[in-house]
Amino acid sequence: MLNRLAVLTIGGFALAPAVYAEGNVPAVEEVVQSVDLVWMMMGAFLVFFMHAGFAMLETGFTRSKNALNILTKNILTMSIGSTLYFLIGYAIMFGESFHGLIGTSGFLLDGHSDQMGFAIFQAVFAATCATIISGAVAERMKLGSYIVLTILMTGFIYPIVGHWVWGDGWLAELGFVDFAGSSVVHLTGAMGAVITVIILGPRFGKYAQERVNVIPGHNLPLGALGVFILWFGWFGFNGGSTLAADPEKVPGVIAATLLAGAAGVLSSCFYTQFKYKRIDPSLTMNGALAGLVGITAGCANVTPGGAMIIGLISGIFLVEAVPFFDRVAKLDDPVGAIAVHGVSGVWGTLAVGLFSTDGGLFYGGGLHLLGIQALGVLAVMVWTVAATAGCLWVMTRFSSIRVSREEEISGLDFAEHGSTAYETTKSIFNENFVDPSHEAFGIGLIQRLDRLTPTPSNTKAELS
Amino acid sequence: MLNRLAVLTIGGFALAPAVYAEGNVPAVEEVVQSVDLVWMMMGAFLVFFMHAGFAMLETGFTRSKNALNILTKNILTMSIGSTLYFLIGYAIMFGESFHGLIGTSGFLLDGHSDQMGFAIFQAVFAATCATIISGAVAERMKLGSYIVLTILMTGFIYPIVGHWVWGDGWLAELGFVDFAGSSVVHLTGAMGAVITVIILGPRFGKYAQERVNVIPGHNLPLGALGVFILWFGWFGFNGGSTLAADPEKVPGVIAATLLAGAAGVLSSCFYTQFKYKRIDPSLTMNGALAGLVGITAGCANVTPGGAMIIGLISGIFLVEAVPFFDRVAKLDDPVGAIAVHGVSGVWGTLAVGLFSTDGGLFYGGGLHLLGIQALGVLAVMVWTVAATAGCLWVMTRFSSIRVSREEEISGLDFAEHGSTAYETTKSIFNENFVDPSHEAFGIGLIQRLDRLTPTPSNTKAELS
Amino acid sequence: MLNRLAVLTIGGFALAPAVYAEGNVPAVEEVVQSVDLVWMMMGAFLVFFMHAGFAMLETGFTRSKNALNILTKNILTMSIGSTLYFLIGYAIMFGESFHGLIGTSGFLLDGHSDQMGFAIFQAVFAATCATIISGAVAERMKLGSYIVLTILMTGFIYPIVGHWVWGDGWLAELGFVDFAGSSVVHLTGAMGAVITVIILGPRFGKYAQERVNVIPGHNLPLGALGVFILWFGWFGFNGGSTLAADPEKVPGVIAATLLAGAAGVLSSCFYTQFKYKRIDPSLTMNGALAGLVGITAGCANVTPGGAMIIGLISGIFLVEAVPFFDRVAKLDDPVGAIAVHGVSGVWGTLAVGLFSTDGGLFYGGGLHLLGIQALGVLAVMVWTVAATAGCLWVMTRFSSIRVSREEEISGLDFAEHGSTAYETTKSIFNENFVDPSHEAFGIGLIQRLDRLTPTPSNTKAELS
Repeated sequence: MLNRLAVLTIGGFALAPAVYAEGNVPAVEEVVQSVDLVWMMMGAFLVFFMHAGFAMLETGFTRSKNALNILTKNILTMSIGSTLYFLIGYAIMFGESFHGLIGTSGFLLDGHSDQMGFAIFQAVFAATCATIISGAVAERMKLGSYIVLTILMTGFIYPIVGHWVWGDGWLAELGFVDFAGSSVVHLTGAMGAVITVIILGPRFGKYAQERVNVIPGHNLPLGALGVFILWFGWFGFNGGSTLAADPEKVPGVIAATLLAGAAGVLSSCFYTQFKYKRIDPSLTMNGALAGLVGITAGCANVTPGGAMIIGLISGIFLVEAVPFFDRVAKLDDPVGAIAVHGVSGVWGTLAVGLFSTDGGLFYGGGLHLLGIQALGVLAVMVWTVAATAGCLWVMTRFSSIRVSREEEISGLDFAEHGSTAYETTKSIFNENFVDPSHEAFGIGLIQRLDRLTPTPSNTKAELS
Repeated sequence: MLNRLAVLTIGGFALAPAVYAEGNVPAVEEVVQSVDLVWMMMGAFLVFFMHAGFAMLETGFTRSKNALNILTKNILTMSIGSTLYFLIGYAIMFGESFHGLIGTSGFLLDGHSDQMGFAIFQAVFAATCATIISGAVAERMKLGSYIVLTILMTGFIYPIVGHWVWGDGWLAELGFVDFAGSSVVHLTGAMGAVITVIILGPRFGKYAQERVNVIPGHNLPLGALGVFILWFGWFGFNGGSTLAADPEKVPGVIAATLLAGAAGVLSSCFYTQFKYKRIDPSLTMNGALAGLVGITAGCANVTPGGAMIIGLISGIFLVEAVPFFDRVAKLDDPVGAIAVHGVSGVWGTLAVGLFSTDGGLFYGGGLHLLGIQALGVLAVMVWTVAATAGCLWVMTRFSSIRVSREEEISGLDFAEHGSTAYETTKSIFNENFVDPSHEAFGIGLIQRLDRLTPTPSNTKAELS
Repeated sequence: MLNRLAVLTIGGFALAPAVYAEGNVPAVEEVVQSVDLVWMMMGAFLVFFMHAGFAMLETGFTRSKNALNILTKNILTMSIGSTLYFLIGYAIMFGESFHGLIGTSGFLLDGHSDQMGFAIFQAVFAATCATIISGAVAERMKLGSYIVLTILMTGFIYPIVGHWVWGDGWLAELGFVDFAGSSVVHLTGAMGAVITVIILGPRFGKYAQERVNVIPGHNLPLGALGVFILWFGWFGFNGGSTLAADPEKVPGVIAATLLAGAAGVLSSCFYTQFKYKRIDPSLTMNGALAGLVGITAGCANVTPGGAMIIGLISGIFLVEAVPFFDRVAKLDDPVGAIAVHGVSGVWGTLAVGLFSTDGGLFYGGGLHLLGIQALGVLAVMVWTVAATAGCLWVMTRFSSIRVSREEEISGLDFAEHGSTAYETTKSIFNENFVDPSHEAFGIGLIQRLDRLTPTPSNTKAELS
């Protein structure tokens, strides 16, 4: 018996024509399925990789003492989100609809196993929504509480929104257009972030001494890498949402994604030059993300020119929104997630009502579509705010969702994990050779816990 | 004469229908070949990119004084492995079989040039096996010795295993199932690592002063990036191993890869919480890799639920295996490669005998397949141990494969390359402006060698 | 009304056969278009991602005080280049030819919207050419001047070369072969870099005190990541240039790309061992890029053996070229861009005349093709040098293109952006908690400008 791989090699690839000549020529429909599968899988891989981008972005834009904690949150988010999606999320989102509100069939993909490719693509999407929150709550939320919130967000709150818009839900019935999720993914994540940030409060020292203090990120090149990875992944996020390698539609979606991202970069860049008299690197990079969030809803329905305009406006909104949330609303969001995903999420969804070549105001469609878009935005905001607030209210009945002040000062890497993200090489005969604050692979963790605990004297010195 | 690119543009893409209308409509079989080609090439690119992941993982989890050395090893491994595979590896693996033991035809792809796409995919696989070793031997193996070992590993030891399992070899004949290489790639690499680590001995100071010392990595965010890149690449590793964009098979393989990786993360995470009372970031991240190695053998033969269970168990094994090798077996493996690739490699291969829907014990298949899987694991281990030990025995007849104690203390970047991976900006008028320990691009290397050599006094101070 | 996504899900993917059975079976030609689209889009995404590679490479190989500036340049280059390409570049490159010199139709893709997929692929290419310059001019060129140069380069200078070779231009008519752009992209970028570097002059301190000083990069692991990303992306750069998923052609192109890159690594590695008695990590990594630039012109026309030889020679040329430009020609190129892209660009283009199986000297083709290749190289060099010099001459009439000495010493991150790329965690009660040299997200930038400006005393201390 030949082994499977070798058979496939000979049968599927090189000698395919010969084999098919014996009467097994596949039908054209089957080939189309294969092509669409390749396209959707590529999209799924790229969306998966966006989580590397989020991890690098959030790590780079925060302090080194919380780096391991943030990285752990990111990989857990991906893992929880995709697992839950297979178990229950898919069913809630794409199952048989209960009055357009929630899906009720297909748990564990039961009866939908022929949709597994589609479920993979949607599963990596689901995790994105929660990851947006992880950046906004960085540096002070308990890991355990974040895990609970992520379970609720990816397993329940997000799939409901998804059902409304992408399943057989009531917003879909109304004609609401959100092609790849400016509202479904980004606004949902951002509103979850707003509520959680309000309940958490700002980082210690952020608004101390009557000032708005800047707490700089520790590694912006890592953050910039995150932006590039996210943009790269976005081609899969928007492009894969076509679900088919359709030559009529895909090039327009990809061009919109490229051009809106570029426009966001350019408008953020030049608007910071105009406003602050110098180009701000962080805002310029986040301008790409603002433009990309902005085009996510409309990428299949606008012209390349429309995409550019949407991106340009996204970039300007970003430059105004970041200081607004930071200084006026006093929402302490270390990575600017609320400005990027929230403001651009709203704008991008509404922009479909303006720029859609199929019903947009600027293309003779009147106000009908714009009104539906506004209604959808409102609905997503109300549901996400209410559901997240409810979840957090229950959670806070059991324990605080925030680490203690001492833990925050010593850093979450130290306080929650007994580790640090960076080490410098030390002489191995030095007493400090084995850095007590770090445990690679958790070895010997237990017996050193006493040494790991911040001593009252240390903490006191910092607090005094 | 029109240039080729322009012709293709007009002929192949936009105006295709018109051109084909003139009587050149391709047969469906040819289109299938194209689709499968795109899928396999995507897989090859992703597997190639895994080497970036290995490089970041290994660099991040070791000390900064050895970073350049490790990066150099990784890029050399890719280059040596893929080159040798085209020259001899493919022939040994997929050539005409000599009694099921070794392939004997197709050197330089002679007579197999129609298999070049397949050879590319296999070539990037071959390098993976050796790269696993590079992490385990980090921080003390001579670069020259590592290069020789990589040549033997990718050019000979690995292709033999590959022939047995994926060529017309004896394990394939028996019905051994290792779809994408839990044994062929990962266990082979891990057993090579075990032997090399035993012969090399631990890093200086690792088991000094009667203790098991932790030698922390210097940049865990880089290591985390490596984990994300590896997972991303694994979709190509497992997915591409289908060799065809088969809608019946690919979604199951990809779902298994996603869910087993996620399950490995979750079980490592919660098991470290259970065992150590806190979540260990390094083990959580390596849990993804453990789950992925575990599902590699069975990804085409198990259900999504089976994949989750395999991943969950992989993660728990990892958390137990790392301290076992580190503290009990006293194998000094800086990045945990033996635990990740060895233990999960064995488990994943055996798990096929349990969870395969086609002959697994839990699916009514009895013990037959499980027995074959165990035999295969044993065979791969015996061969790899014997061959690697033999190669290393010969190599050590000629010279030590380990750097000197002084070189190890000063760091391999300094000792082997006269360079350092990191520099801080210094005033250019400072005497130290041109750091003598660093030579960007090797310029002026020779005339400064005296300055580069660690002086006896420096070294003595460290040793005393 | 069902929403679009749900319809597609059901109609396009899972239930496709059923739908098609109702009389909508697509023609084979349409499926071919889909496959080619997937291939070309994958290529475009990978080429896009190369910009992450360039950003990491350039950041890692320069000093930390200029990191944000370089990252900003890279993301702006991508954004400017791709936007301009849609507006005018495509038209100049692929529009109706004016005497083989310049395209004159298709501005804003007018009348070419069916070519949007192809335009996307070409747009991400266009930005590559300018990004090559950003590395060579790093650490001293004004950001504003760089932006103007990028506009001219991607909007005008590069598309002209592209028209000559890939459009209906005169070099194409002559039979000049440059499959994926050793000359069109890499040599053009490198010659632009040469001229700009000459006009800019070396970095302060580079050739001070009668010596050739080494100015080491600050983060070589980041640089190594950049190399891996670039190689990964190159599979899309060369592979996507086939514009079709042609099983006859693609495997050869990809194998050539893999093997030439590997050969460049190996020859650089062993040649530095031979020349300097130790392996140089930076040159080894850049050897990959040298081999890749070298094979870019001929990847569709040479055998795997030919690709290896071209790569081997590229690597050796690199090791000789870097010190030549640095020490003899005294061109201060921080990342070695001129050696990598210029020398290998020339060599790779000429090598087609030697190794092409279709007209190369070594394949019985005589000197005809080699002569045309040499003419093409000369033409690209003359045009790029003249045009870049002209542009820079005009630019320097208006202002200096170089930052002041004080700005250069304090670093461009500080001088141009009032920021730094890295922060270490400080006690939040420390007076320095809010580092005045850093402004995350530009918040509060204005009111601190006085504090940001280097004081005369600071600067004087450094200069004295």
